[in-house]
Amino acid sequence: MGAGVARLVVIGGGAAGMSAASAARRVAPGLDVVVCEAGGFAAYGMCGIPYYLGGVVPEAEDLLAYPPGEFRDKRGIDLRLHTWVSAIDPAAHQVRVAGPAGADGSGPLGYDALVLASGAAPVRPPVPGLDGPRVFTIRSLDEAIGLRQLLDSGTVRRAIVLGAGYVGLEAAEGLAGAGVEVEVVEALPRVLGNVDDPIAAVVQAELERHTRVRLGTRLDEVRDGGGRELTAVVGGVATSTDLVVVAAGVRPASDLLIQVGAEHLPDRSLLVDAQQRTSVPDVFAAGDCAALHHLVLGRPAWIPLGPAANKTGRVAGTVAAGGAASFRGIVGTAVVKVFGLEVARTGLTLAEAEAAGLAARAVDVVSRSRAKYYPGAQPLHVRLVHAPDGRLLGGQLAGREGAAKRIDVLATALHAGMTVADIAGLDLSYAPPFAPVYDPVLAAAIKAAGSVPSTAGGTHEPAAAPR
Amino acid sequence: MGAGVARLVVIGGGAAGMSAASAARRVAPGLDVVVCEAGGFAAYGMCGIPYYLGGVVPEAEDLLAYPPGEFRDKRGIDLRLHTWVSAIDPAAHQVRVAGPAGADGSGPLGYDALVLASGAAPVRPPVPGLDGPRVFTIRSLDEAIGLRQLLDSGTVRRAIVLGAGYVGLEAAEGLAGAGVEVEVVEALPRVLGNVDDPIAAVVQAELERHTRVRLGTRLDEVRDGGGRELTAVVGGVATSTDLVVVAAGVRPASDLLIQVGAEHLPDRSLLVDAQQRTSVPDVFAAGDCAALHHLVLGRPAWIPLGPAANKTGRVAGTVAAGGAASFRGIVGTAVVKVFGLEVARTGLTLAEAEAAGLAARAVDVVSRSRAKYYPGAQPLHVRLVHAPDGRLLGGQLAGREGAAKRIDVLATALHAGMTVADIAGLDLSYAPPFAPVYDPVLAAAIKAAGSVPSTAGGTHEPAAAPR
Repeated sequence: MGAGVARLVVIGGGAAGMSAASAARRVAPGLDVVVCEAGGFAAYGMCGIPYYLGGVVPEAEDLLAYPPGEFRDKRGIDLRLHTWVSAIDPAAHQVRVAGPAGADGSGPLGYDALVLASGAAPVRPPVPGLDGPRVFTIRSLDEAIGLRQLLDSGTVRRAIVLGAGYVGLEAAEGLAGAGVEVEVVEALPRVLGNVDDPIAAVVQAELERHTRVRLGTRLDEVRDGGGRELTAVVGGVATSTDLVVVAAGVRPASDLLIQVGAEHLPDRSLLVDAQQRTSVPDVFAAGDCAALHHLVLGRPAWIPLGPAANKTGRVAGTVAAGGAASFRGIVGTAVVKVFGLEVARTGLTLAEAEAAGLAARAVDVVSRSRAKYYPGAQPLHVRLVHAPDGRLLGGQLAGREGAAKRIDVLATALHAGMTVADIAGLDLSYAPPFAPVYDPVLAAAIKAAGSVPSTAGGTHEPAAAPR
Repeated sequence: MGAGVARLVVIGGGAAGMSAASAARRVAPGLDVVVCEAGGFAAYGMCGIPYYLGGVVPEAEDLLAYPPGEFRDKRGIDLRLHTWVSAIDPAAHQVRVAGPAGADGSGPLGYDALVLASGAAPVRPPVPGLDGPRVFTIRSLDEAIGLRQLLDSGTVRRAIVLGAGYVGLEAAEGLAGAGVEVEVVEALPRVLGNVDDPIAAVVQAELERHTRVRLGTRLDEVRDGGGRELTAVVGGVATSTDLVVVAAGVRPASDLLIQVGAEHLPDRSLLVDAQQRTSVPDVFAAGDCAALHHLVLGRPAWIPLGPAANKTGRVAGTVAAGGAASFRGIVGTAVVKVFGLEVARTGLTLAEAEAAGLAARAVDVVSRSRAKYYPGAQPLHVRLVHAPDGRLLGGQLAGREGAAKRIDVLATALHAGMTVADIAGLDLSYAPPFAPVYDPVLAAAIKAAGSVPSTAGGTHEPAAAPR
């Protein structure tokens, strides 16, 4: 690779793909950069779709990072919308392209370097009727525009959201914001599988304030009688609804590359090195189809989220075009707004740590988002997960304010390999409107450090007066 | 020290002193713990005073961390209010105490260990008339109660705040909140000396929206004619005002210990070791009277702020009572609310780094507090200061939301000794309501890393689509 690259083909025009294309263009101005995007939009804010549904974001165009002409006209990127790649031939260095009906450009397309940035695809559980016209997923802007039109038509009074993961919760909030009565149906006995039970309980209480929540319950069938209403069978009981949103998880859209022998994890996410190279020569993978190096686990893990999609796209495009870049890895940081609640996590939950075979302990603290006397202070739930020797393994936060960005202190601590005693010693910011004098993160770390034998233990508890 | 300690005397009932007393009590339940507090309150939130003045905090009692009886009745701490210590005799292990008129307890008081937690005292510049009855400082609750009564009397229409440091700005906000027309007078040509010019300019603009700001101007004299109005001479021009608040900085209240030979910095802050021991045997210092180890400078520095006061008080009390604890140091993290603005800093400003003789560079980025398409996104100004090799030296943030706690990522990075490239690689949280997909801290670090030769440089710029 490198100076000899003449054409880079990118499969997927999302965050990873357009980051790759733009980075490659900067590194190699003379390179032919072709992006094949199956949908009708590129470089849009996929994570904004729930807010577009609820009307918080008024127009679909608001989600576009750049005007449609930006890539073609200003960046010299051959962005082809409505263009599918149906096969990759690594030996011939070709992909097979199917363009829009009647358009040029179908057939084989040669590449010197290929970036697969095809993202993740929604899982549709094997429930009869989930292929009907009033059943939606929250994964593409094309589909979201159809859903929003339906919501705007005023014919949707009730909706079922299948799945209480973070996408399901965001979808529920979006639909509720559009004035729809929402019922969340989740087969597991709890919401938000990527946090531990004590934090999930806080989330569930907030969700129940705004929606009907059916946990440990299955959607058995959806029947479309052809009229405006659907019949959904939930836990064996038939109920009328106007809409079903499926948010039952995603899977890596990696089939094209696995078919030609690319190495992958059991979950079908693609294995890559720090330069985003797959095991297939001259083929890179970036974004939600790739497994990434998890700094806490010390091995690749598949956690499809936006920031890494952007960053790994940039690395893949840079390296594919002959430049130098590398991706350092992830620690599993994520945040979600659930109605009035901010819920954040990083590293490993206790459940994840135990599933990985690690000895781990958790401490929980409920502190406040502001000084006790400052109006508007909200409870802030903090959970720290640490090894017996005090090394931080992860953290979780939930509260009506101050959770979203506070998680980043713990994410940074994970990158640095800090112990809970190290965290207890951090010089964090304080002023009455923004934190108690012992920040909730410090309060949790002090408590955790007290349970680790090698530290000064019980003498670490906060003693007296906030300022 | 240790098991032989029979009596601990603490001078000062603020955050540091009450933390020391409470920690000592936990470590040594049989210890006689006496706290001498010159004022009428102990363990109150001094940083809340500006908010009490403005009515955001309704009652003075709201600022008390604990009910008045808590320390005496529940913790067995002999807390003596209105009690001055006028001298320390290290050879005799005695302090000289002056209690309230007519009360017992005046005279010498022996100690086995002594914690000086006398805090910092406001500087009163040598301006004629600053000792008058309508001239206040923002440093004690006793004085604040008098000021609040005056504000509540409805006779205060205009006020002059002398000093545009963070206490002056908080006082200005408090007074404006009480309906007072505020004029801020500052001798220096800029506001908020603990941030660099680009951030100070953002603060100044916000301050000018709410007050009259007179920079590079001196208060020459205050004349009290005995009526309701004062005459203040500002920059040579006489003007009427109802009130003057002096917020011209503080100095360590360390005289008692310096008189008996304690080692100190030129600014008169007391030198201590990691256990808060001063150079005087069996005498500890904690809180705003002590210099603390600055992890970026690698030497002691005097930065009087609440979190370190609480922490160092706890360490001093623990060690004085025979326990084990140590204070790791500070990085100079601070945050202040200036009307609608959050302003935060950590480490060294460019000016501070240069004053310390360090080679340093600064990069500035204006990003957003939320995804571009999410309503309410506010500009967020980020400045990073780093060494030529990329090591982070400090950071500053200002914005209408998202600055206060984001600084803690940079504070944590300073504790860990990270470079700007390390920061650019952090896995920070993202969701549209809380951040752009490249968090402003990442955007600044990417820009900074691009200026450091050893990194991949220009290939680090954000490329494409936020999610």
